[in-house]
Amino acid sequence: MHYDLPHAVSWESGDLYLLNQTLLPLQTQIEKMTKAEDVWQAIYNLKVRGAPAIGVAAAYGICVAMKPFLELALPAFVLEMNRQADYLDSARPTAVNLKWALDRMLNLVKYVVEQGTVTHTAQLYAYMVDQAQKIHKEDIQLCQRIGQHGHKLIQSGMGVLTHCNAGSLATTGIGTATAPMYVAYQQNIPFRVYADETRPLLQGSRLTSWELQQSGIDVTLITDNMAATLMSQGIIDLVIVGSDRVAANGDIANKIGTLSVAINAHYFGIPFYVAFPSTTVDLDTATGKDIVIEERESKEVTQIGNQVTAPEGIQVRNPAFDVTPAHLITGFITEQGILKPPFSHALQQLIKNPRGKPSRLGSPPRCEAGYLLE
Amino acid sequence: MHYDLPHAVSWESGDLYLLNQTLLPLQTQIEKMTKAEDVWQAIYNLKVRGAPAIGVAAAYGICVAMKPFLELALPAFVLEMNRQADYLDSARPTAVNLKWALDRMLNLVKYVVEQGTVTHTAQLYAYMVDQAQKIHKEDIQLCQRIGQHGHKLIQSGMGVLTHCNAGSLATTGIGTATAPMYVAYQQNIPFRVYADETRPLLQGSRLTSWELQQSGIDVTLITDNMAATLMSQGIIDLVIVGSDRVAANGDIANKIGTLSVAINAHYFGIPFYVAFPSTTVDLDTATGKDIVIEERESKEVTQIGNQVTAPEGIQVRNPAFDVTPAHLITGFITEQGILKPPFSHALQQLIKNPRGKPSRLGSPPRCEAGYLLE
Repeated sequence: MHYDLPHAVSWESGDLYLLNQTLLPLQTQIEKMTKAEDVWQAIYNLKVRGAPAIGVAAAYGICVAMKPFLELALPAFVLEMNRQADYLDSARPTAVNLKWALDRMLNLVKYVVEQGTVTHTAQLYAYMVDQAQKIHKEDIQLCQRIGQHGHKLIQSGMGVLTHCNAGSLATTGIGTATAPMYVAYQQNIPFRVYADETRPLLQGSRLTSWELQQSGIDVTLITDNMAATLMSQGIIDLVIVGSDRVAANGDIANKIGTLSVAINAHYFGIPFYVAFPSTTVDLDTATGKDIVIEERESKEVTQIGNQVTAPEGIQVRNPAFDVTPAHLITGFITEQGILKPPFSHALQQLIKNPRGKPSRLGSPPRCEAGYLLE
Repeated sequence: MHYDLPHAVSWESGDLYLLNQTLLPLQTQIEKMTKAEDVWQAIYNLKVRGAPAIGVAAAYGICVAMKPFLELALPAFVLEMNRQADYLDSARPTAVNLKWALDRMLNLVKYVVEQGTVTHTAQLYAYMVDQAQKIHKEDIQLCQRIGQHGHKLIQSGMGVLTHCNAGSLATTGIGTATAPMYVAYQQNIPFRVYADETRPLLQGSRLTSWELQQSGIDVTLITDNMAATLMSQGIIDLVIVGSDRVAANGDIANKIGTLSVAINAHYFGIPFYVAFPSTTVDLDTATGKDIVIEERESKEVTQIGNQVTAPEGIQVRNPAFDVTPAHLITGFITEQGILKPPFSHALQQLIKNPRGKPSRLGSPPRCEAGYLLE
C-alpha cells in the first residue's frame, strides 16, 4: 500500500519549509522559513515539535540564518554563525536536540575551516547544507530501522493502541512508535490503530489521528479514559508508545498517561512496547526515580483552546510526563532490534554498539538531567 | 465546618427552581420553571441531570404543569395530568427515574381520588405538592445516610480520588460518591479531593470540581490520564465513585473511565469504593456482561464546546459507560451501610431489607435493561 506522509521538515531548492503543527488538524499550512527569526519563532511556538524534528529543523535553520552573510569572509562568517546558533538555541533552551544539532553544525564548520578544506564562504555554506541533509537522512533512517524491526509485532487483524504523538510529525521520518505501523501498512498487513487523544495538549487527536488518517491507516480516536474499556472488550492486542527518556534500568519517561496505559495493558495481559532510537537512552539516569517531571501551567487543564472548562481559581496538577517502570514493559523497539528484559544489560549493549550512530562530526544527543521535551 | 451546597432542584413558595447545569462552571444561573414546557426543556437540555435529581425535578415538574388546570373538576384534572405526565416523560425516555417519579405522582392522585380522600382539585394539588416534597426529602435522606456510613473511610490527611459527578448536582442532597466527603468535611477531617475531569463531557471539571470548590472542600482538578501518575506518587489513599447500575454479582456500570481508575487503584493497592443507594441495584442483571453500553455521538470526542480538536471524518469510539468487575471493588457504600465482598449475598440482603425504601405509594426506581443515564 502507498502512504503519503506529511513532512514536518523539508528542504527544497535551498529553502527550509516547516509544517505549522499548531494549526493541525484544522489547517495544513507549510511555511517557508526566510530568516533566522522565522526559525526561532517556529521552534518557540511549537510549529515544529518533537525532539528529532527540532534537531533537523535547527540544522537547516542555521543555514537559513547564515544565508544573508554569504558575502562575509570566512572568519567573520564563522563568528556570525556562533551568534546565530546562540540565538536559535535560545528558542527552546531545554530542547537537547536543538543544541545538539547546532553544535554538530558548528563542529563541522570549525573542522573544515581548520583543516583548510574550504577556502571561501560559499564553499563552506555548501558543506553546511550537506551536513544538515546528513542529519536529516540519519533521522529518516533511524525511524525506518525502528519500523523494520517493529513491524513484525503487528499481525493481521490486530488492534494497536498508541498514546500521544511519537509519529512522523515528531521526526522527519516515519516516527518512532508509528514506524512499525507505517511499515506494516506498506506490507499490506490489515490492522487498526486506536489513538488516545492525550489530554491536556491533545497530541493524539490533533496530530497522531491526523497523520495516520492522512496516510490511509485505519485509525480510531478515543479519549484517554476509554483505553481500558476497549482492552476489556478484547479489541486491543498490542500497545506501542514512544519515550522521552529511557533510564539505565529500563524505566521510561513518556507523555502523561503512559503509565495508566501500561498498567491497564498489564492487567489485561496485552503486550506493551516502547519504541525509540538508542539516542533516547540515558545510562547516567539509574532509574525512573531520578527523572524530574516538569509541571506545566494549569491553563492547559482548565481550558481547551480558548474554551474554559473548569471553575475559576480551581487547583490543578499538570505533570507533563510520567514514569513507567520497566517491569510493565514487554520490550523496546530500537533501530538495532527489539530488546527484551532484563533491560539493564540489553540497554548497555545497545549503547556500546551504536549502529545507528551518526557520522564522526556529531555525537548522538543525550538527555541531560531533568530534560524532557514537549 | 460549614458548607453551602448548590441546589440542583428547589421548591420555594410554590415554585420550582432549577440550577442550569449546562452553564456551569462559568455561570450560576437558577431558573424558575413557570410552565410544563420549561420543565421539559430543562430535562431535555440537561439543565438538570443525574438520575435522582431528574426524579425530583419531574415530581415538582408535574405540579408546575398542572397549576394552570386548578379550575378543572377532579376527573378532567386527572385526565389532563396523565397527558402532562406523558409529555414530561418524553423529554428523556430512557431516564428511568423520570418515569418512576411521574408514575408515583399519578399513583398518588389515583389513590386519593379513588379513596375519596379529596373532593376538589385544590385539595388534590396540595397532596401532589406534598408527595413531591416527600420524594425530594427521601432523596436528601438517602444521600445523607450514604455520607454517614461512608465518611469513616476518609481519614485525616488522605487524598481521595473521584471520577465524573456523583455529587450534589446529580441528586438533591449531598450526592452519592461525594456524600462521605461532605460529611467528613463537616466533621473537620482535613483531606484533599482529586477530581478527574472526565472526558468527553467533562463532568469532573465542570461540575464536581465546581461543587466541591463552592462548598470549601480542598479539591484539585486533573485530567483522567493523570490518576495513575498521582497514585504512583503516593498521594491518593482512597477512591470513591458512583454507579449507574449494580449487577447481582457486584459488577458495576459507571461513567467511562471508571474501569481504568479501578485497575490503577488495584495495581497500587488503593481501596476502591462505589457509593450508591440500594435503588441502583438491579438483581435482574446477573453480571456486568449483561449491561448494554450506550455509544454516543462522535462529536463529543472530536470537539469540546464548539472547539474542534480532531481531524474531519476521523473514526471515533464513544462508549458512555464501562463495567468494573466486582473483584476490583473494595466495598459498596450504601444507605444501609458499607458492603464488603462477597457482594452477591450482601446485595440480596440489601434489597430484602429496604430501610431506605420510599413510602407505600411508590416503589423505588429500578434500572431497566439497557438503561444507563447521562
